[in-house]
This record gives sequence, C-alpha cells and structure tokens, in this order.
Amino acid sequence: MEQYIKTYKEQLQKLKAYEYAIWLMGWDKETETPIQGYAYQDEQFGVLAEAAYNLESDPKYIEAIEHLYEHINELEDPDFQVEIKKAKKSLRIVQKVPKDEYLAYQMLVQTAMPIWVNAKKNNDFKAFAPTLEKVVAFQRKLVKYLETDELKGYDVLLDFYEDGMGVKEYDQFFNTIKEQLVPFVQEVTKTNLRFPKRLRTGPFPIDKQKELANYLMAVFHYDLEKGLLKESAHPFTSGVTSTDTRITTHYHEDDIKSSIFSVIHEMGHGIYEQQNDEKYDDTALHGGTTLGIHESQSRMFENMIGRSFAFWEVHYPKLLELFPKQLKHVSLVEFYKFINEAKRSLIRIEADELTYSLHILVRYEIERALISGHLKVMDLPKRWNYLYSKYVGKRPKNDSEGILQDIHWAHGSIGYFPTYALGSAYAAQIYDAMNKDLNVETVIRTNQIALINHWLKEHIHKYAASKSAKEIMMIATGKPFDPQYYIDYLKRKFSNL
Amino acid sequence: MEQYIKTYKEQLQKLKAYEYAIWLMGWDKETETPIQGYAYQDEQFGVLAEAAYNLESDPKYIEAIEHLYEHINELEDPDFQVEIKKAKKSLRIVQKVPKDEYLAYQMLVQTAMPIWVNAKKNNDFKAFAPTLEKVVAFQRKLVKYLETDELKGYDVLLDFYEDGMGVKEYDQFFNTIKEQLVPFVQEVTKTNLRFPKRLRTGPFPIDKQKELANYLMAVFHYDLEKGLLKESAHPFTSGVTSTDTRITTHYHEDDIKSSIFSVIHEMGHGIYEQQNDEKYDDTALHGGTTLGIHESQSRMFENMIGRSFAFWEVHYPKLLELFPKQLKHVSLVEFYKFINEAKRSLIRIEADELTYSLHILVRYEIERALISGHLKVMDLPKRWNYLYSKYVGKRPKNDSEGILQDIHWAHGSIGYFPTYALGSAYAAQIYDAMNKDLNVETVIRTNQIALINHWLKEHIHKYAASKSAKEIMMIATGKPFDPQYYIDYLKRKFSNL
Repeated sequence: MEQYIKTYKEQLQKLKAYEYAIWLMGWDKETETPIQGYAYQDEQFGVLAEAAYNLESDPKYIEAIEHLYEHINELEDPDFQVEIKKAKKSLRIVQKVPKDEYLAYQMLVQTAMPIWVNAKKNNDFKAFAPTLEKVVAFQRKLVKYLETDELKGYDVLLDFYEDGMGVKEYDQFFNTIKEQLVPFVQEVTKTNLRFPKRLRTGPFPIDKQKELANYLMAVFHYDLEKGLLKESAHPFTSGVTSTDTRITTHYHEDDIKSSIFSVIHEMGHGIYEQQNDEKYDDTALHGGTTLGIHESQSRMFENMIGRSFAFWEVHYPKLLELFPKQLKHVSLVEFYKFINEAKRSLIRIEADELTYSLHILVRYEIERALISGHLKVMDLPKRWNYLYSKYVGKRPKNDSEGILQDIHWAHGSIGYFPTYALGSAYAAQIYDAMNKDLNVETVIRTNQIALINHWLKEHIHKYAASKSAKEIMMIATGKPFDPQYYIDYLKRKFSNL
Repeated sequence: MEQYIKTYKEQLQKLKAYEYAIWLMGWDKETETPIQGYAYQDEQFGVLAEAAYNLESDPKYIEAIEHLYEHINELEDPDFQVEIKKAKKSLRIVQKVPKDEYLAYQMLVQTAMPIWVNAKKNNDFKAFAPTLEKVVAFQRKLVKYLETDELKGYDVLLDFYEDGMGVKEYDQFFNTIKEQLVPFVQEVTKTNLRFPKRLRTGPFPIDKQKELANYLMAVFHYDLEKGLLKESAHPFTSGVTSTDTRITTHYHEDDIKSSIFSVIHEMGHGIYEQQNDEKYDDTALHGGTTLGIHESQSRMFENMIGRSFAFWEVHYPKLLELFPKQLKHVSLVEFYKFINEAKRSLIRIEADELTYSLHILVRYEIERALISGHLKVMDLPKRWNYLYSKYVGKRPKNDSEGILQDIHWAHGSIGYFPTYALGSAYAAQIYDAMNKDLNVETVIRTNQIALINHWLKEHIHKYAASKSAKEIMMIATGKPFDPQYYIDYLKRKFSNL
C-alpha cells in the first residue's frame, strides 16, 4: 500500500511539472506570445503533451491507482480518497481513447485559435468550419469511447465540466428558465432605456481605467503577491496554485462597464483559487471543484456585489473623481440603472445579467444537437440565428456577431457553456445562504468585502476540489441546488429597476 | 550514419521542448511570476531540468553524437558539422560532472535570485554570502571536472561564454585597456559637466516614455510580430527562436536616458536573433554565436548609433514634441553632451560608454582571483571597493552600490562579465568595417536604419551560431579582433566632446 501511494505521488509530482509548463505556455499564448512565435510553441507543446501522456499511461502509475482504488476504504485521509477516485476516473482517457487520436486532437485544438481568430475577423464561417468539423468529430468519438451505463451521449461531455450534471439535469434547469424567465425577459426588454451619450461612449481614458482596476483589486482584496492583472483580448483567469492565480482584463476607451465588470468577474474566479487551502497545491485537488461552482463565484462578485446599489453607494465617488467630466450629469441612481440595463443583445460576453442565461440556452441546445448528430456543422449559422431570434429576441446580421463569437469550440470545449448559466443560478442560492450569516448589503456598503471573502473561504474556497459541487451546495446553503433562487432573484431585482 | 543522424535529431527535438519550457519559466519569473508563486515554479523547474538531463545523458543520444563526431568529415552539411562539434563539447557536462551535483547546482541558482534581491535591498552582503559561497564552490569544482590541456582554471568558465577567449587573451585585452584607456578616462572625468536640473530629473511622464519606446522600435525596425517590449526591474533580451525574441525595459520618471538607451540596447540583441536564419530555429545553432558578439550588437545600437549626434539630429524633434516643457531650454548639442556625459560612477548598468569597460575590469580581476582561490567570498566587498577606487576612481559607500549590484553571480554566471567589455571592442571594429560599405552617419541622419540592419544581417546575424566569433570577425571585418579600434574610437569621440 505504502509503495503504491509513493508511486502515485511521485508520478503525480512529475505530471504536475508538465501541466505547469503547458499551463504557462497557454497563459503566454493568450497574453503575449508574438504571432510568429505560435508555430514553434505549438511544436514544443506537442512534445511535452506526449511526454505527459506517457507519464499518465505508465503501467506502474495505472497499477498504483487501480490498487489504491480497490482498497480505497483503507486510505485514512478522506481527501486522498477523493484524489484517488478522480485519478481512477481520469484513467478513462489513456485506457479507452487511442493515443494517436488523443494526441492529434490535442494538437488540433492547440493550433485552432488563430484559425478561429481570423475567421471571426473576416466574418468567414467557412474558414473555421473544417476545423470545427474535426473538433466535433473527435468529441463524438470521445463520447462513444467513454459512454457508460450512467453517462450517455452529450452527458459524457457535460460531466467533464460539471460532475453530476447531465442532459436530464440540465433539461430541467433550462426548462425552468424557458418557462419562467423567457417571458419575463421579453416583457422587461420591450423598451430600451435612454442614457446620456457621454456615459455610453466616454471617452474614458485607459490610464484612468487602469487606476480604477487597481482600486477595485484593493476593494476586493485580490492578493497581488499571489496573482497579477494583465491585459488580453478576452478577460480570463488562469491559476496553477493558490500562490499563483492570474487574471486579465481589457480596456476600451468608449466603454466604462467592460473593464470594471471583467476585473470584478475575474477576481471572483481568482480569489476562489487564491483561497484554496495551500495543502492542495501539490495534489490533484487544487482549483475549483467544478466550472459551475467557479462561475458562481465570479458571477456573484460581478453581478450580486459589483452591480448592486450598495456597492456604488460607497464607490461611485471614486468613479466621479476619476471621470469628472464624463459623469458630470450622471446621478448614482442613473449610473446604477445604466450598469443594470437589460436588453436584447447578440454578444454573450457583453450581455447583461438578466438576459445572460438565454445566450447559454441557445448554445446548450446547439451542442446537444451537434453531439447527437441531429445538427451538422454546416447548418450551425442558420440554427444559431433562429435560436437567437426565438430566445433572445434579436437576430445576428452576420456570423462574426453570431456563431463565430466564442472561442470555446475552437478550444474543443463542448459541454462547457451550460456551466455559465448554472453558475449564476448557484450564485443566487449561495448569496441567499450567505445573507443568513452576514447582512451582505451592509457589508458591501461599509466596504468590508473581506468579510464576504472570509465567508466564501470557509464555506467554499478552502475545500478546493476536495468536495463535489453537490457537497459544496450542501455545505454552503444546507440544501440541494434549486434554480428557483435564481429566477426569484432576477425577477425581484429587475422588477425593481 | 542515417540512423545516428535520426537519433540525434529526434532527441534534440525533445530536448528543445524542455529548453523552451525552462526558457519560458525564466522569462515569466523575471517579468511577472507573483512573488508567492516562485517556490512552486522552482519545484516544477527541478522536475523538468532533471527530465532534460536524462535526455542529454541518454546513452543512445551520446552514442549518436560520438559516432557522428568520429565521422564528422562524412557529414555533407557544414552547419551540421558545427552542430555536432558543439554537441560533442556539451557532452562534457553529463560525462564529467556528477549528476546529483549538477542538478543540485541548477536548483541552487534557480532559487538564488530572491535571496540576492533581498540582500541588495537590505544592503546585507552577509545574507547573500552563503549562497555565493556555494556558487563559487561549485564553479571551482566544475573547473576541475572540465579542465583540459588547453583550458585551465578560469579559462574553463570564460570559454562557456566566449569560445576562444581565455585568461591569456583577456589579459592582453584588459592590459590594453589599463594602459591606454585608464589614464585617458581619468583625465576626461576630472571635472563634471553641468546640465539643467530639469534635464537630469524630469519628471518625464511614463506614458510619454512608452510612446517614445514605440517610436524607437519603429525607427530600428524591431519586428513586433516576432517579439515584444515588456517591463522588468532590469532590462534584458530573451529569445528562443528567430520568431520569438523578446525585450524588456524599465521606466523611471526622473530619468529620460535610462529607458531610451535600454530599449535601443536590447533591440541590438533582439534584432540579432530575429535576423538569425530561420533554418536554425529547429537546430542547436539558433541564437548569437557568443556573448561578446551578442553584446557588440547591443553596444553598437546603443552607443555608436543611439548616442551619435547624427541620430539625434533626426530624432530630437520627436523628443521635443513629447517633452516640450522638460527640454524647453535644452539645445540639441547640449542634449548630445548630456547623453554622452562621462563620469566616475559606481553602478555598471548606469555607466557611460567611456568608463564602462573599467567596471568590467574590476569584475574580471575579482572573478579570476575567486576561481584561482586567491580571494575568498568574505573578502569580496573589500576587494571590490579597492578596485573601484583604483580603476574607476570612486569608492562605493555600501555593498548595495558595490559588490551586490549585479545579479550575474546569483545566476551562477562567472566568466560572463568580460564579454561585456569585449562586445564594445568588437563593436568598434565592426562599425569601422561597416563604414567601408555604408556611410553610416548619413544612413543614421536620413533615418534608414534598415540599411544597417541589412548589413548586419548579411555579415553577422544570419549566421546565428554556425560561425565562431573569430569567423564572424573575419567575415564582417576581414581582420582578426584588434582592441585598438575600440581605444581609438573612444579617444576620438570623447576628445571631441
């Protein structure tokens, strides 16, 4: 037993070095690799990914995991039991998927990004379609390789990102949204609000926006000894340990909302991992437990805290100080309405809190049909545009603002999108529970977000990936997940607005 | 034969992936790793460095190199012959240095940086001394392991950075400097020039300095598709292929010279590697041939071009545009004198063109004595201060501005410093040769630096590391290296000033 534990831990330590290198290459690619440096980086990625695969498929490592899994009840440390269960599940890949196919697929998604970027820039779906065909073909094969009695079809992919959520569970969730939210949204977004042009378009000087970002990092206690804020085309969070979790944003001179809410959003992700218990850094349990729980943290920060009236009661003066001319005739109430403006829009990452999950609903239905084979890649633009009309109430004029807008499928991430909507729904339930321990509105208004961070640390963050999403919801809220909190929260907030 | 070539190339391809990962980790550490992320990064470095070592010491790889080296004349491609000669030489490490000692040393220098940073910050040589003791002890052992009939003592280390330059050659070089330059410098620096306070201290707003850096990158045709400019505490260049060679600078609001000349300096390094023939990217011959030749490119850019009167004749109006108030009463001639001010100073990286090599002379004599055992680490501060008085004519008041100022020894780089002085001397000879093909002053004054880049590409850059420094000097100048060009150049320039 001791020997198997030793073998497992030694091999994992090696594997984590490769994961680190690959993580860093990804971070570099997204934030600064010179464009002509991609090809060489991709080659080196291929070598390291294969070396990592060889470690994962090493018979000694597999034997150790199999043995430990068979004797899991003899392991004293419950965290280590969880780790072994996850390791056992991960073996699926090396045991069931042919090595060549798997590595070829990794190279495919490693090199797909610039193809997607160009297709989007040139509004040319046909330029991206062959790559997407290959991604979908592999994902469909992957489903076949990994199907079990419990996980069928699209379930297999959904399960990668959100353990415990399959088509059955998501159908229930999205049906609630369709039934209760779609009519409400259509009502709320019938008319558009009017705001001063200067508020909509600025200009808001970039250096002032950067100053604001620094201010917000201090307000939220994002730890700059364990992370950093950088710029990238699309904001994201990328962490490797509790001691190194980095975030990005982008600045647009004509848009004050974009950088504010992307910084706050990414801090939700970043603080989650910075507050993971350090003891997990060297294990397979570092990170968020699922993407849905991860997204619940970023959505709570962004929407429930960052877009609350209480937040701007205390921080609007800072905004006035930085942008005195731009905000001269804008009252706090008007600003609050502006940052919560709900409207029928086409771009997911710019969508407001109320309509956001309808953008996800579109993607969920499309992915399900793609994986089942009911929808062909070539028919995607048409279906996309139809579903946007149906659920969001607005039809894209071209593919750049339609089917080509998101990078996820180029990354090979099918089954990922639904966690975005789920995260918002988790957030509402967690926020409700937190309110039983803290008067959150008062905490926000008195600029004591450290108290919120502490609550989240104790109820969610410190556990890292050692608890499942279901367990986290029980620990944090005392109840299983219930989407009604989300619906009620949105109806309450947007009825008042 | 074919099989050995195949083995060599396949193994090299793998090795280069590890080198890439380690390169990227170094770049990240110097430019952005959060401080609490160092320890984890170091651990992963250890795993990858050992994996790379295992590839380098793989008997099949060694056998292939040995065989190819024995039959080197049968190899048709002369570049490949050079590569095999270098590979054969590199085998020394795995064949003569015990693995454990070598890997422990790599970890030592990987983790030494923050120790040095803190010691420097706190002016506490004692805090750094134990680390430096270990570095020196290993380097002295390394010398013993690698000594040959040709390379003895400090020669072994000097040879790592400048193939063909040992104590005998450097003694000749530094004797010329001592005899001809030291008295001249002491004469020139007897009195200090006076400049307007605003010119010395600004403030020069950082955003304007950044705009200037972008302007300079355009002037010098630094290729931003193959590189980038970032900030770091100390400016440096870090390249991995012709398609990815990055530079850094730093901005100080009270100092206009620092960012201008560090950007130009680093572009000299960067353009060298960007102009390496692409065919070397996948081989062991990418990069500069030696550090001395590398430094000749950066010093030529910085001093011979960047600090020339012709350069500012065309670009001073841009400076006036960016800093109208700060430079209101500063004439072009006065600015030219300001950027060429020669004075007795303590900090190498801020030293002027004239006195620079005297800073290196100090380090050369110290390293030689350290490696021979005539000087102990504990006696370093005293010796340093004595030699600064003797050669530079100024004595440090504390160790932060003395023995602790440079990171090199913390990196384990002993034998590196002398290449800095050598590079300046190479540069003078190369610049002289270039002047026979181009009227360089006119080229600079008409803002056609692309012509200079082209000349350097054809005579130096494109060869990457496929020619030795001696060969490069013959190709570029038609003569062996002769330090008299350097002495004459400095005397001419600084007599006129």
